[in-house]
Amino acid sequence: MTDRPISRYPVPNVTDLPEDLRTRILAVQEKIGFIPNVFLTLAHRPAEARAFFDYHDALMEKDGGITKAEREMIVVATSAANDCLYCVVAHGAILRIRAKNPLVADQVAVNHRKADITPRQAAMLEFALKVSQTSGTLGDADFDVLRAHGFSDEDAWDIGAIAAFFALSNRMANLTSMRPNNEFFAMGRQGR
Amino acid sequence: MTDRPISRYPVPNVTDLPEDLRTRILAVQEKIGFIPNVFLTLAHRPAEARAFFDYHDALMEKDGGITKAEREMIVVATSAANDCLYCVVAHGAILRIRAKNPLVADQVAVNHRKADITPRQAAMLEFALKVSQTSGTLGDADFDVLRAHGFSDEDAWDIGAIAAFFALSNRMANLTSMRPNNEFFAMGRQGR
Amino acid sequence: MTDRPISRYPVPNVTDLPEDLRTRILAVQEKIGFIPNVFLTLAHRPAEARAFFDYHDALMEKDGGITKAEREMIVVATSAANDCLYCVVAHGAILRIRAKNPLVADQVAVNHRKADITPRQAAMLEFALKVSQTSGTLGDADFDVLRAHGFSDEDAWDIGAIAAFFALSNRMANLTSMRPNNEFFAMGRQGR
Amino acid sequence: MTDRPISRYPVPNVTDLPEDLRTRILAVQEKIGFIPNVFLTLAHRPAEARAFFDYHDALMEKDGGITKAEREMIVVATSAANDCLYCVVAHGAILRIRAKNPLVADQVAVNHRKADITPRQAAMLEFALKVSQTSGTLGDADFDVLRAHGFSDEDAWDIGAIAAFFALSNRMANLTSMRPNNEFFAMGRQGR
Amino acid sequence: MTDRPISRYPVPNVTDLPEDLRTRILAVQEKIGFIPNVFLTLAHRPAEARAFFDYHDALMEKDGGITKAEREMIVVATSAANDCLYCVVAHGAILRIRAKNPLVADQVAVNHRKADITPRQAAMLEFALKVSQTSGTLGDADFDVLRAHGFSDEDAWDIGAIAAFFALSNRMANLTSMRPNNEFFAMGRQGR
Amino acid sequence: MTDRPISRYPVPNVTDLPEDLRTRILAVQEKIGFIPNVFLTLAHRPAEARAFFDYHDALMEKDGGITKAEREMIVVATSAANDCLYCVVAHGAILRIRAKNPLVADQVAVNHRKADITPRQAAMLEFALKVSQTSGTLGDADFDVLRAHGFSDEDAWDIGAIAAFFALSNRMANLTSMRPNNEFFAMGRQGR
Repeated sequence: MTDRPISRYPVPNVTDLPEDLRTRILAVQEKIGFIPNVFLTLAHRPAEARAFFDYHDALMEKDGGITKAEREMIVVATSAANDCLYCVVAHGAILRIRAKNPLVADQVAVNHRKADITPRQAAMLEFALKVSQTSGTLGDADFDVLRAHGFSDEDAWDIGAIAAFFALSNRMANLTSMRPNNEFFAMGRQGR
Repeated sequence: MTDRPISRYPVPNVTDLPEDLRTRILAVQEKIGFIPNVFLTLAHRPAEARAFFDYHDALMEKDGGITKAEREMIVVATSAANDCLYCVVAHGAILRIRAKNPLVADQVAVNHRKADITPRQAAMLEFALKVSQTSGTLGDADFDVLRAHGFSDEDAWDIGAIAAFFALSNRMANLTSMRPNNEFFAMGRQGR
Repeated sequence: MTDRPISRYPVPNVTDLPEDLRTRILAVQEKIGFIPNVFLTLAHRPAEARAFFDYHDALMEKDGGITKAEREMIVVATSAANDCLYCVVAHGAILRIRAKNPLVADQVAVNHRKADITPRQAAMLEFALKVSQTSGTLGDADFDVLRAHGFSDEDAWDIGAIAAFFALSNRMANLTSMRPNNEFFAMGRQGR
Repeated sequence: MTDRPISRYPVPNVTDLPEDLRTRILAVQEKIGFIPNVFLTLAHRPAEARAFFDYHDALMEKDGGITKAEREMIVVATSAANDCLYCVVAHGAILRIRAKNPLVADQVAVNHRKADITPRQAAMLEFALKVSQTSGTLGDADFDVLRAHGFSDEDAWDIGAIAAFFALSNRMANLTSMRPNNEFFAMGRQGR
Repeated sequence: MTDRPISRYPVPNVTDLPEDLRTRILAVQEKIGFIPNVFLTLAHRPAEARAFFDYHDALMEKDGGITKAEREMIVVATSAANDCLYCVVAHGAILRIRAKNPLVADQVAVNHRKADITPRQAAMLEFALKVSQTSGTLGDADFDVLRAHGFSDEDAWDIGAIAAFFALSNRMANLTSMRPNNEFFAMGRQGR
Repeated sequence: MTDRPISRYPVPNVTDLPEDLRTRILAVQEKIGFIPNVFLTLAHRPAEARAFFDYHDALMEKDGGITKAEREMIVVATSAANDCLYCVVAHGAILRIRAKNPLVADQVAVNHRKADITPRQAAMLEFALKVSQTSGTLGDADFDVLRAHGFSDEDAWDIGAIAAFFALSNRMANLTSMRPNNEFFAMGRQGR
């Protein structure tokens, strides 16, 4: 069996992209050594791609009550619930690196209830999964649970917005059959 | 029973917003006579709001094989599947106006199988709902059905991306308990 | 796209109907100015139609701890859960008129958790939706919640019986592809 | 463990009932030797009970393309899908008697796909279960399948209306915790 | 309609089976007068059959905090949730006999919430059904509920392991279309 | 966060186990360098453990139309559908090794529709997932699909029986909170 293609849609050459997207992509390549396929797949539609990456960075690169590793946990748990191969594998790699933990990504992807995480992180993931799967049933009681674990309402927005953004991202990856780069599967699995 | 607030989160004064958001919002107010609550709710986080509205406009204001009225149909059908009051009511109003049809929004929101739409539009909504609800099961056969109704693969991206974007939007509206402006409920119901 | 027919089945002429049904239908026409399509659709089977309207009136026209507007709320919420276009649109109109509220029908149809209703009404709708969707799981605890909101056990019967009757009604409307009269869509949307 | 009561609600004395209900109930008792609990439970509300039994008889006692035994099969299969103890047990007994078959009721209740029934009966039950469980998704294709098995559109109404009526009946039984008479469990199990 | 066969797969002659299986099967026949079809169906694969019956006996024939009748209750309730005709009918018969109760098997199969069982037995079945249907969501709180009803953690293993074993058994019966022997349907229905 | 324990239940010392289990376990340890936690967890109940490992070996160690790597694919796909951390991680490692492919286990666990597998393997996994998740709906058409891909009916038994056995295994792992050994997470990820 040969490998599937990067995307169901045409993938642009980086050199043909508008300058802002090209610069953004080359910066990532410079940093990690390869271009994640999400950039190549979504760049098929530059205007949408710009908004996508701006939104992503506004949610994932900020500081606050939720650590960057915890933000990746939310991505992995909700993406697994949406059967999104790209996001589970790519963000699983980032989670292993940011958490300096080679086990937690697979644990959270398969069943966060059995993961080596704190009760506070478990509550965070329960809230994120409710936003992801049955957001219409959210109510005051869900925010109360977060507060009881020390999360502010701004933290709740962060958790919910990350789950919401990856609801979009997972669907784009499934629509385009976006392939995770082979590099991601083994990243961050050493140590411990 | 008094009316619920616009948002569970603080709502900024338009005059306090960064200039680009203020300009964008005042242009909408100029055009339709009031400020849709989605602008006030999401402007609580300017960086996220900018990306949100850029993404929205890239998908909803463009031309192509899917008319603007049909784009709104996708929004209404998928938002109803996600129990999103704001999006069903606000985009229901826009759909009635764009389609010059006072009935179709309620029809599509409750059960598109009983709506006065064409078989091509029904196929479009089936694809959109699959992206919205079970995107992990999408496959070649789903694209084949669209092609048999005359949709190109770029049209399929449009349909899927709108369903994906409102998967995000619905979750933000449910997270924030975003209230639809009272004006939307009756808009576009005259005529015929 | 032309409008769909009233019913998948033959629709009788009112003048050809048995006298009791004809009298009942003409009285409604006299009162509201048109004949709701549910009468024409179900009159295809007079014996079933008689029992249907007798049952309906026994539940919906009585007084008691649940107001007539609240009875219509139950109909709208449970019919939306069953994807029944006829009942959501027709009873949405009646709800707007009985509640003198142009917003509440759409709110309850899309997501009652975001509606401008009282906590007592929200508890009533939760019970009704449980009867409608998962009646096999009903237990003493559900009745206790109603009692805590001041409902008697006879009120509980009313709530449950309305949800049960429209479980029947929704299925007949979906079976026959019963079309809501165009008049219903805009009724009761003025004011406020 | 003592037996549960007949109903969660008060059960009237037959002698205290309005004459028409009393006569109807005594006729049943005369015929089968005991009073099925559905009569005693629903007679708590005479107006509703009258409509209920009129509706029941209009659907279940008529002749047509569906035999009386097949009508009971529809009741048993859909009532099992709704976890309704009363209807599965009471109509299971009637099915065994009408079909002169001591096995078919349990087969249809647990999994009609493994029952000793004809392909035509299996198609009838598939249609009935779709009306019962997901009526909003019914479409022309479902009627086409019935026609391919020799059912007329009037037969389709019968099948669908029985499924719809027992959607109501199952919910009333679950609401009231209606207890099946002990007699029903063993009726019709002899022979073969 | 003729009866369906015992299995979708070839059924061996008992005389052709390896001696240990033949002995085991003849002992059952000696005891109850006929050979339950599960033996004939699974003996198509002797190595798997041996492990199956060893596992079954380790769980069902032991003593402990759960009576043998209660063990059968778990089988009937979880097998009904899995639409397994063979297990509901065969173990329903065993349950009636072990509990000396002609009603409880049908009650538990259709809706254990309406059955004549104790609150302790109801808690046991809730735990078993959670293991059977959504085992990934099990947590400490579920064990706490069992403890509050006087079950030890070893009892919890028994309950869960029986539900788990019949998750296997139900799937083998559905895979092979295993037919319950006609004898089982009426067994244990006398008395009371 | 410290690591969770191996099991919610007491874990025996290997030296205290009955000789046959001790021998079996030490042979595995000899071969792979550590004792998989499933042995230690299930050995808490020796009689059940014996039957479990006999059953496992009868299904997983045999030859036939399904390769050993494909058998592990079935385990990984169905265990992911059941949210079973132990089985996804442990059998994911075995799958990587047997398939000599560091990517396929994660692909199959998250979404087999996006995996680098053949159409024949995809059909095998669809059948396995149907046995695993909705076995009551299996019918002749499902076997026909397998045959069209070249599988014999004995292969169908293998596929179904593996899915059925891991339905049991997944539930035992979730019941006991069985922890995958840390070694499994990184095994077989080199190469390619």
